[in-house]
Amino acid sequence: MDAIIGAVDVGGNKIAVGLVTEKGELIDSVQWETDAELDAHAAIVPIADELKQLSRSHGVPLVGVGCAVTGPVDYHRGILGKNAFLPKWEGNVLLSTLIHQLRLPVFADNDAIASAMGEYTWGAGKGARSFIFICVSTGIGVSVIIDGQVYRGVDGAHPECGHHVIDINARGPACFCGAHGCWESLASGTAMELRWREEFPEEPLKAKEICNLAANGVAEAQTMVALEGRYLGVGIANLVTQFVPEVIALGGGVMGSYDMFLPYIEEQIAEQCRLVPQELVEIKPARFRDKAGLLGAAAVFPLYSYRLQGLNNTHDE
Amino acid sequence: MDAIIGAVDVGGNKIAVGLVTEKGELIDSVQWETDAELDAHAAIVPIADELKQLSRSHGVPLVGVGCAVTGPVDYHRGILGKNAFLPKWEGNVLLSTLIHQLRLPVFADNDAIASAMGEYTWGAGKGARSFIFICVSTGIGVSVIIDGQVYRGVDGAHPECGHHVIDINARGPACFCGAHGCWESLASGTAMELRWREEFPEEPLKAKEICNLAANGVAEAQTMVALEGRYLGVGIANLVTQFVPEVIALGGGVMGSYDMFLPYIEEQIAEQCRLVPQELVEIKPARFRDKAGLLGAAAVFPLYSYRLQGLNNTHDE
Repeated sequence: MDAIIGAVDVGGNKIAVGLVTEKGELIDSVQWETDAELDAHAAIVPIADELKQLSRSHGVPLVGVGCAVTGPVDYHRGILGKNAFLPKWEGNVLLSTLIHQLRLPVFADNDAIASAMGEYTWGAGKGARSFIFICVSTGIGVSVIIDGQVYRGVDGAHPECGHHVIDINARGPACFCGAHGCWESLASGTAMELRWREEFPEEPLKAKEICNLAANGVAEAQTMVALEGRYLGVGIANLVTQFVPEVIALGGGVMGSYDMFLPYIEEQIAEQCRLVPQELVEIKPARFRDKAGLLGAAAVFPLYSYRLQGLNNTHDE
Repeated sequence: MDAIIGAVDVGGNKIAVGLVTEKGELIDSVQWETDAELDAHAAIVPIADELKQLSRSHGVPLVGVGCAVTGPVDYHRGILGKNAFLPKWEGNVLLSTLIHQLRLPVFADNDAIASAMGEYTWGAGKGARSFIFICVSTGIGVSVIIDGQVYRGVDGAHPECGHHVIDINARGPACFCGAHGCWESLASGTAMELRWREEFPEEPLKAKEICNLAANGVAEAQTMVALEGRYLGVGIANLVTQFVPEVIALGGGVMGSYDMFLPYIEEQIAEQCRLVPQELVEIKPARFRDKAGLLGAAAVFPLYSYRLQGLNNTHDE
């Protein structure tokens, strides 16, 4: 039988828990609202309880647990960093509580990295020697996976490709990264919404709504989409130039309109990346949408290295 | 005794040949002018002859040969790509001729990558888990070395970090990479010279001369250096954000004035890279200057893996 991984996806709004097979099938899941006010231990014990419950009701033991958590996570040390949404969860309380409750190996990583690992393990990046996952939603999250490993900088730091500067002369307030004119500040869904609001202050719209209007032929929205496409394209083309990866997958809310943005992105790559074999870089949509969180969480658990070590699940109560 | 590597540095203007110890000491070298008109085989045989001569006169056998060549090189296949300076050398003639003449293992790589490998093996990047070498001269060459390996993209492609776009709104003619506003087109020595010439068309100066004037307190030159420093700084800060490498080393002609540019670079990193642990990224000057070519060439030869294989020099005529 396939090994079953316990998956835990902790966001600012909701906590989801599920069972995922080593083939990437989500067997079952439950979710509830995050209560950031709750003492962390009290908030985490129910996660363990739900995992036990799911495991029991399906009659499948777990080999281990992978967690995807909003905010910075020190993967190697299993420690949650400074967290805007879950300040009470900072430190090692998530891992220590789950390990104590479940007696299983538990791993955690940032949710954006986890989504990338999910796409790499079972989705759009499967088998690629070099893979970049770009999540375009309120911000722009980027993970680079080389030879199956998430690329991390010195001391395990997660690079922030979404915040490289593409407009050195940008005016206005700085991004929270400190830069003026970084990619995220110009090409995220939020950036598109701000541009729309500047033009039509009486009629603020969400990124998705702007895309829908464009799809329905509304000229002002199409202009906005073209501009967003160009900003997106310049940053993606920069990553093509800088990494020449085998596959780039695009996910996140804004990429619900993938087909609409693709021509702009391709045009920018064709124009801007003539020194590298751009034709060998495959651009594709992310495979997972609703399930991305839990599949990503499961992919955080190093299934194969763990099994190679000959370890086995001894927790089957 | 230390293993001795034959080093061959082939540029558009000159060919240099030397002996380098495994500790990175240049024992001896000779050089002559490149004759691009010459049939490649006829041009390459003297390289082999000089290596034999050096080896004999110092009484040291060679374990193998490393070559640094201008233009694109397919390292894994040992093939020189389309080459503006040495069109007759395209293909495998360099390696096949040297191997046939010397009966030794021979490896070749692009000269910019080779310089980075030299700095990584014996210089500024020694021991760094992640290392970026930036060569600022007429252009901007960048090599990324992760865990001792040059990072290459799909099909062994060399990424071109020097050509990522930092000014999305740049006007004027496109760079040869296709982009408007790429880093090289704004921050190379050539870019600085062009800016100077626009301001003072009657008095064109080389980058080095502008730096010298600035060092001597000439205000116009200092303004030019400050602008160049900002352009350089934005691109370097982007690499800090995107890779968070342990060490970044700066080499090339323009970095002869390293101390003058450093404050601008540091200022840009401090401002622009607040999401990553910038304080852990060490910025330093390249160690090798005149010797960079031959030490780089020697570093192209995979000394340790070769020795691990238990191979030995059998050519000792």
